[in-house]
Amino acid sequence: MEFKLLILGSSSALPTVKRNLPAQILSYNNKPFLIDCGEGTQLQLRKHNISFNKIDHIFISHLHGDHFYGIFGFLGTMGLLGRKKPLHIFSPYGLEEIINSVFEKTNSEIPFPIKYHILNTKQPEIILTTKWLEINSFPLKHSKPVCGFIFKEKEKPANIIKEKIEEYNIGISEIVKIKNGAKLKLASGKEIENSELVYPKPKLRSYAYCTDTKFVAKNYKPLKDIDVLYHEATFAETDKQTAHNTGHSTATEAAKAAIEINAKLLLLGHFSSRYKSNTHIIEEAKSIFKNTIGVEDGDYFEI
Amino acid sequence: MEFKLLILGSSSALPTVKRNLPAQILSYNNKPFLIDCGEGTQLQLRKHNISFNKIDHIFISHLHGDHFYGIFGFLGTMGLLGRKKPLHIFSPYGLEEIINSVFEKTNSEIPFPIKYHILNTKQPEIILTTKWLEINSFPLKHSKPVCGFIFKEKEKPANIIKEKIEEYNIGISEIVKIKNGAKLKLASGKEIENSELVYPKPKLRSYAYCTDTKFVAKNYKPLKDIDVLYHEATFAETDKQTAHNTGHSTATEAAKAAIEINAKLLLLGHFSSRYKSNTHIIEEAKSIFKNTIGVEDGDYFEI
Repeated sequence: MEFKLLILGSSSALPTVKRNLPAQILSYNNKPFLIDCGEGTQLQLRKHNISFNKIDHIFISHLHGDHFYGIFGFLGTMGLLGRKKPLHIFSPYGLEEIINSVFEKTNSEIPFPIKYHILNTKQPEIILTTKWLEINSFPLKHSKPVCGFIFKEKEKPANIIKEKIEEYNIGISEIVKIKNGAKLKLASGKEIENSELVYPKPKLRSYAYCTDTKFVAKNYKPLKDIDVLYHEATFAETDKQTAHNTGHSTATEAAKAAIEINAKLLLLGHFSSRYKSNTHIIEEAKSIFKNTIGVEDGDYFEI
Repeated sequence: MEFKLLILGSSSALPTVKRNLPAQILSYNNKPFLIDCGEGTQLQLRKHNISFNKIDHIFISHLHGDHFYGIFGFLGTMGLLGRKKPLHIFSPYGLEEIINSVFEKTNSEIPFPIKYHILNTKQPEIILTTKWLEINSFPLKHSKPVCGFIFKEKEKPANIIKEKIEEYNIGISEIVKIKNGAKLKLASGKEIENSELVYPKPKLRSYAYCTDTKFVAKNYKPLKDIDVLYHEATFAETDKQTAHNTGHSTATEAAKAAIEINAKLLLLGHFSSRYKSNTHIIEEAKSIFKNTIGVEDGDYFEI
């Protein structure tokens, strides 16, 4: 099943010519989820040919403008495109009021229902389960209440070995049970272990989004064994003090987080515009956690 | 003196891959004025290397989101860049409340003073005079109160003919008077006409911005003899009914406006995203008013 990430914006608060404001599309089985919605997100979605009306869920990490100022135009455009079905927006408290205020004060209406879900910025929570995914939020530490997000594949029924169906003449209701882990009890009373009847399941894949945040080791507990970690690396370790003063992380700290949670791949972004090149930031993280990539806008990653 | 226009965004409400949301920079003698501020304007400014802090005046035509949703991020970025000097924002009533509401609800502060100027959407007014320019607003007709803007060069002192200074031994205080139109009175009592002492003045240049609007002939009175007219041409004449229902103009109507005011050059923009190409719209206007150009994002025009 397709499970991939598209980087729409990888700048920090100040966009640059090459880096748009924070936004990502995580898509699973051709269903896109929008994570953060910085100014210009709708332009990036068009550029990458993402259908606006396929998006039913938006996850906003926190209410700093660089992470959500694109939502006004995005909602307006979805309305103009004729959207009628509901949209779900997950964010810390306050976004509903802001959106309503902007639309009311311009006497504009959003012609589809929005269901606002207020994130718990104090403890981890399951915020959405779909057919294929479980999505969790978990608190991070910044100058504003902020959550990260985890997207985990849900346990799926196993694939049964076809030959076994014939061999033991297994009926349909029995097949469903076996796919979900049951043993097979033969008429003779003999039991066949589930593992003999089904193919081993592929490992469940997972992705986590962590920005904006200071490094606080205990915050990463809910991320144990996540496959792909996107973590902000706003600063280099030489600017550690600035990072801490502004509620951000250094590349070293992002790498420590990847080690802490036993990630397979670390994606770095949210680079400060003060650096002309980010090579030294990426190298800094790589020297601690080898499998590190600094993202660029437009990059795709298979989870 | 440099007097030029840069198109930052030429889409209508729905941006496309090639056309950003409405915004323009009109610059005179290296001083930029921002006209409209659709989402993504700050990204376009960066792309075209326009210094944010050189901009002291923003003119918002009306409060439809596609014309001002870029202002939140633009103000935020100017704050982060350390701006302290005042910013002037001209718009129809309501923008101050919207901006304050967004910044208050996110507990953010704009660290520089903003002076809001409410446009008169009922009659033309001089809204700003600088050393070199007079800037006027005038009402247009749309589904929201809306103003167009005129930027006119102010009358400048003439250049005196150097040889005449020697010939008549003209003193400094006399020179200033002559540059401003005075005759020269010689000791003999003889008078020398001003036109014999100075070079002819170059014609004063002017630019007008008209969007969004229906075609209403009387609204163009204040634009008589404007050099360059930017006019919306959201629709082709075949979609005239839609144009009128939505408070917009067709290319034919934009051309009629250019004739009405005796413009030298007509620039068309704000094209509806329903058209894959705008060639037919531009040709439609050209068949009525020959000196017509359909603008593209990134185009520069000398006024």
